[in-house]
Parts: sequence; C-alpha cells; structure tokens
Amino acid sequence: MTIAITAVRTLDIRYPTSRFLDGSDAMNPDPDYSAAYAILETSEPGLTGHGLAFTLGRGTDLVVHAIDALAPKLVGRSLDGIENDLFGFWRDLVGDTQMRWLGPEKGIIHMAAAALVNAVWDLLARRAGLPLWRYLAAMSPEQIVSAIDFRHISDALPRERALEILLERAPGRAGRIARLEQDGHAAYTTSAGWLGYDDDKIRALARGAVADGWGAIKMKVGGNLADDIRRAGVLREILGPDRLLMTDANQVWEIDQAIDWMGALRGVDPWWIEEPVSPDDILGHARVKRGVAPIRVATGEHCHNRVMFKQFLQADAIDVVQIDACRLGGVNEVLAVLLLAAAFERPVCPHAGGVGLCEYVQHVAFFDAACVRPSDEGRMIEHAAHLHEHFVDPIRVSQGRYLAPQQPGFSVEMKPESLAEYAFPGGAAWRT
Amino acid sequence: MTIAITAVRTLDIRYPTSRFLDGSDAMNPDPDYSAAYAILETSEPGLTGHGLAFTLGRGTDLVVHAIDALAPKLVGRSLDGIENDLFGFWRDLVGDTQMRWLGPEKGIIHMAAAALVNAVWDLLARRAGLPLWRYLAAMSPEQIVSAIDFRHISDALPRERALEILLERAPGRAGRIARLEQDGHAAYTTSAGWLGYDDDKIRALARGAVADGWGAIKMKVGGNLADDIRRAGVLREILGPDRLLMTDANQVWEIDQAIDWMGALRGVDPWWIEEPVSPDDILGHARVKRGVAPIRVATGEHCHNRVMFKQFLQADAIDVVQIDACRLGGVNEVLAVLLLAAAFERPVCPHAGGVGLCEYVQHVAFFDAACVRPSDEGRMIEHAAHLHEHFVDPIRVSQGRYLAPQQPGFSVEMKPESLAEYAFPGGAAWRT
Repeated sequence: MTIAITAVRTLDIRYPTSRFLDGSDAMNPDPDYSAAYAILETSEPGLTGHGLAFTLGRGTDLVVHAIDALAPKLVGRSLDGIENDLFGFWRDLVGDTQMRWLGPEKGIIHMAAAALVNAVWDLLARRAGLPLWRYLAAMSPEQIVSAIDFRHISDALPRERALEILLERAPGRAGRIARLEQDGHAAYTTSAGWLGYDDDKIRALARGAVADGWGAIKMKVGGNLADDIRRAGVLREILGPDRLLMTDANQVWEIDQAIDWMGALRGVDPWWIEEPVSPDDILGHARVKRGVAPIRVATGEHCHNRVMFKQFLQADAIDVVQIDACRLGGVNEVLAVLLLAAAFERPVCPHAGGVGLCEYVQHVAFFDAACVRPSDEGRMIEHAAHLHEHFVDPIRVSQGRYLAPQQPGFSVEMKPESLAEYAFPGGAAWRT
Repeated sequence: MTIAITAVRTLDIRYPTSRFLDGSDAMNPDPDYSAAYAILETSEPGLTGHGLAFTLGRGTDLVVHAIDALAPKLVGRSLDGIENDLFGFWRDLVGDTQMRWLGPEKGIIHMAAAALVNAVWDLLARRAGLPLWRYLAAMSPEQIVSAIDFRHISDALPRERALEILLERAPGRAGRIARLEQDGHAAYTTSAGWLGYDDDKIRALARGAVADGWGAIKMKVGGNLADDIRRAGVLREILGPDRLLMTDANQVWEIDQAIDWMGALRGVDPWWIEEPVSPDDILGHARVKRGVAPIRVATGEHCHNRVMFKQFLQADAIDVVQIDACRLGGVNEVLAVLLLAAAFERPVCPHAGGVGLCEYVQHVAFFDAACVRPSDEGRMIEHAAHLHEHFVDPIRVSQGRYLAPQQPGFSVEMKPESLAEYAFPGGAAWRT
C-alpha cells in the first residue's frame, strides 16, 4: 500500500528570546526566535513529516499563510511518486505560475516553500528509517543530481559537472561515514558574543566555551568600533592565539566602512568577517574581500537562492559559503549550492542558531563531508546553545563538535508540549 | 489643524485576465492581473491615499496580509510629520527589526511596503493638489535627496553626487515641464505581442497599433524559436524598418541559450531583449549583454531593490533600467534608482502593463524627464491597453505617447464599483 500525504497542518511558534537579548546583533536588536512550522500528515499511522522556516517574531504568520497557500500542491502526492521524481515536487512548489511573481524564489514565498520541501525530505528519511544525512548519503550520485534544479546555474554547474563531483567523491564514502559517526563534525559557537550582552557576560560565556572544548567563537560587531575592539580583545585573551575568533556585522556597513572597520580589528586576528554589507551586494562583497584579506569574507544566511550563491562564487566575492537550510528553498536547493561550492572549491559553513537551524544544518554538513566536499579544511557548523530543549531529537555537541544525528528524519520536530506552549498568540508563553 | 492617517483598509482585487491569455508570456502563461490594494484614511474628510502592489492572482492575499502587518506603522502619523522627514516613514516600513528578516527588502514584505509607501505619496500629492510627478518636480533637490535611503548604495551614489545630478538639471526645469504638459512622453506598446495570442490576432493588433501612431512594439519570445522567428517576421513587416521591435523572454533562458536565440532573431533587428535570464543574475546579464550587442539588454521588473540595480549598473550588465514602481519599495526607492541610472548614464524605461502599473510609472517617467535624466534619448514608458477603465484617473495616450497626468495624486485609485466587482473571492466577477 503506497503512502500518501493527506493533509498539511501549520503553526506559528514564537519563543520570547528578545526578553534576554539572546540573538541580538547590529541589525537585529530584538529577535523573538520563531518558526513557521508545517506538519505533513500521511496515510501511514504515526508517520508525519516536519519542516519549519525560521523567523524573528513579527511576520511569522505571513510565512504560515504562505505555507497554507502552497500546501495543496503536496496533498495527495504519494511518497513513492515523490521519491521517483525528486525534482518535480520542488519545481511545483517554487514555480507556481501565479505565486512565482511574489518572489521569484526569494522572501516569504520561498521560505514557505522551504518549510514544505524540508518536511517532505523529513518524511522520506523517516520512512527509510534513516537520519536525513544518511538517507542522502545512501542515494546514488544520479539520484542526488535528479533532485537539483539546474535552471539558471547551468553556466557555472552543468548537470554533468555536478555528477562528476559526486562520482569523484564516491570512493571512500563508507569510511568517511564511519569516521563521522565516531568523531562528529567540527563546529564553532556563536553563543558567547551577542551584541546585547555586557563584557562580564561575554567573558563568562567565552571561558565556559573554552572549558567545554570549543576551538572557535563568533562575536557580533558593527555597533561601535571602540566597543568592538575592547570586546574582541576580551575574547582573544580568553581564546589564546590558536583558537579562532570570527566576527559578524550583520549587514550594517557600507563597503569602505567595512574595510576600514576590519582594518581596525586586524590586531585580534579575526578568522572571518560575516555579512559585512548588504546580503544582495555581490560586487560589494568582492570589494570587501579584496580589502580585508587575509581576513576571510563569509556570507549566506540571507542569500535567497542558488543564482545568488552562483554569482558570489563566480565573482570571487566570498571565502566561506554560509548556506541557510530554510532561506534557500530547502534540501533540493541546498544540494545545488553544496555542489556549486565544491565546483568553486569553497568551504560550506552552514548558518545556524535561531531555532531549529542547528538541527537542520548538521545534516547538510555531515552529508557534505560524506559525499561532496574534497576536504574538511575550514568546514565548521555554527552552533548556538539556545532552544534545543524544545526538539524531540536535538543536536548533541561534545568538545566543540557536533555528534552525528542518529534518529530518522531531519531533526526539526518540536515536542508537542513546546508547540502548545509557544503557539502564537494563544500559547501559555504569550498569554502572560 | 494637522491631517493624520487614521486607518488603513486593504483589499484583494483580481481581474480574470487568464481567461483570454492577456498578459501571457513564456514564464507566466496564465496571469490574473491583480492588486493588493491599500487605502489610507485620514482625519481630513474626503482625503484618502491609494496604493497597490501588482500581483498575478494566487497569493495576492499574502501581500494583503503583509500590508495589514505593516500598516500600524503609518496609523497616527501626520502628513506634516511625514513631509518633514520623507526618509523616516520609509525606513520604518522596510526596517522593522523582526519583519526585515522576511526579505530583507525583497519579495512579499517589500511589495507590501511599496503599496503603503506609494499610498503615502499619493496622499501628499493630493493634499498639495498636484499630480505626483508635479509634486516631486516642485520639491527642491535637497528635499528629493532627503527621501532617499543611501544605505548600501553609497559606494555608487554618494548623497553629494545625487544632489549634484539634481542641481545640474535644475536649470530649464520649467521649460521641460511645459513641454511635457504639451507633448507628453514617448512610449511603446506591449499589447500586440502576448505569447498566448495567435498570428492573426498579433497581426491585427500590430496593424491597429501602427495606425494609432505607435512607433515601438514589444513581443514575447522564448517559447519556441521557430514560432518566435515567424511572429517577429510578421511584426517587422507591419512595423517597417524604422519602428522599433522589442523582445521579452521573461527569464526562461540559460545564458548561452539567450545569446544563441537572439543571434537567430538578429534578422528582425530587435531593439532590446528583456529579462533574458534569471532576474537575480547580474553577472549572467553582463555576459548576455556582451554576447548579443548591438541588441540592447533590458531588465528590472523583478529587480527587488536599489542594491540589485546598483550592481546591474556597476557590472555594465544592462542597457535599459526597467524600474517597477511597486516591486521596488515605492517612490523613495524609485528615486534612488532614477538617480543611480542617471549617474551611470543609462535610460530608464519603466515596467508597466499589469494593472495600475501604467498609471504608476507615467509619474516616474515624467518626473525623470523634468528633473533627473540628461536627455530623452531611448526613454519610453511601457504601455498595455488592458484594465484602464477601472481607474478614476486612467492613463491617456495619443499617437503612441503618454499625455501628462493632470489630476492630483499617483493615479492608481480604482473606481468603487471596480473594487466591489473584482474583490476576491466575494466580488461578482468571481462568484460566477
């Protein structure tokens, strides 16, 4: 008996993180980490698929409405049908002949598609009894490539080249998977350096992070230069010379300003500067990259589709590719960008934090390690300590590394009690 | 007594244009021209402001929801307060610290902001008793510049340069306005060449257009090369050698394909190729431009903000800047792009058609002619014949030219009976 998707339920889930300035940065001073959350019901008792689009509070309802608008495209589809045409359901979700105008392939409508796309992949992996990264790693190179939309990226990544990359990496896959299962994956933590935290809090958190085995910490910059220099000095002293210190400006600078500001921070030896300027400014990032080298330039959490990432790579505008699993149109488009990054020999360090992003992108990075990238050099998963207690299968970290996800699926299922408590506006967390 | 905005009403208005394939092209085969429509109520009896975001049918409700979410930022503001800080209300609408994540400055949330921004400008112009283009032309260069957000474009257009361009053009303004009032503005028509029309319909419409005095016609291409060559031949024969024939592929090609396809159409002497590839693909457009010259490359109807237009210009990727008045964040951002185009000496030929776009962009082009651009060469407003009967102050064309708008405001107010009939899903047009 074939299994079909029978209904899509949506929820508006918001955590009041702004009350403690968790997640605060120069552009986003008061985020309430939130999720437009989708549950795919199926004809199989007990089998559901879970996906979410990460948001910052207000406006989460808009993404929920958009998921509701796209959901009919999934209802009635069989999982076998989807698995036999992994491209078709994706193109159907992002290519609606009338709703496409609302993006195209960007913003709310694309985030809504991502939540649904990821819920479908969650469902496929659960049915197979595999964590998503293992489900992907078990697919043949031809199957992986069949899930990718090459429209508008074929000049940089023809289908044949994508296949070639995967085939080149096929030997040794079993051994790499075994090592990933045993040793986990390199990571860095963002939890010490939020802009709204005072120096004492940063100092205590950084000391704790080092004691916990973290070898790399990211701090937010771009509010005030003197503050940044002082705070970076505090962190560098605790980190010592060998651990990495990343910086993140969250888009607040003009181009020359970014170059000057990072020049002033050069003394603390930043590993990278993230989102120095507008996330749409490919040519601007290229100028910043030339101006701040050898400090690396990283970006991607606001990079909305494969066409933008293609250009960041073609223009030699970034050193580090920061895929976001639900800003891009879900797994299908993430696969395209992993292969683009491999083709241009740039490391992918996925964007995480927020709520559910760590759970999501661990699968992306583990799959990248198993099947795509040519080396592990410079590859780290972002980590933030918040909100993992709300997940059925939360991330596990040890000594500054992510441990390999073990449970079937894509790991973003929230606990029923969390869904109830943080539902907006009716949940207990918002009624008080 | 100061006038204040007291409430915002929103409507979902859809015209069933897909029933006749009006507006059909290679990417958008079945649009129902629609509008997320906003009405600003004020404390002054009889004074309301009207703005809309153009959409293609399904999903219009999503933009309406987004307008509702942003609307509280306007309620309670005085028109004097807005007029004294023309930047502040714009930044407030596009920079909400939580909703910004849903773009940023792109897609549904930006289109919603545009509808509101334009409704505000409509209100200001109505209060002043002037058509919007005359209201803008009456502002000082300093006032115009004060409305612009230079964030993330200052590398290409510093504030001082923007002011300089406007000051350079100040002499002779009164004379240019008088000529615009008398002679109108050059234009081209898209109404003959929709992809869903058969050859006989195209032939009849093109003959009618030439008889009506049109000197330039645009056709849709990209479905099938043999069809395109045949249809272009039909049009070129009717147009003769001196009238212009534009082509529009609506994003369907890969880069090499665009170059090859336009090579095959070279014999019909196309004036420009519009949207040959992905609207996000700045570097791709640059390659197409080099590959199809002397055929020009035009794009912009999906260009979502000033940062993208900046790069299209910096990369020498386009010959023609096709501003969309409600894809960009309304008048404030349109002003930024007009000045960017002037700085890079590229003509602006605004995107129109749809519903309300002709009404909107005539004001943009007339203001550009009066106060910004250095010459009229190659500057044309797009025209499509549909749906103007639904507007209180519709465009007026004569001998292939737009006549200068005369009534106060921004011209997108729809008639009450049209708002009632085409309201979705309750209006009479949708109940049958």
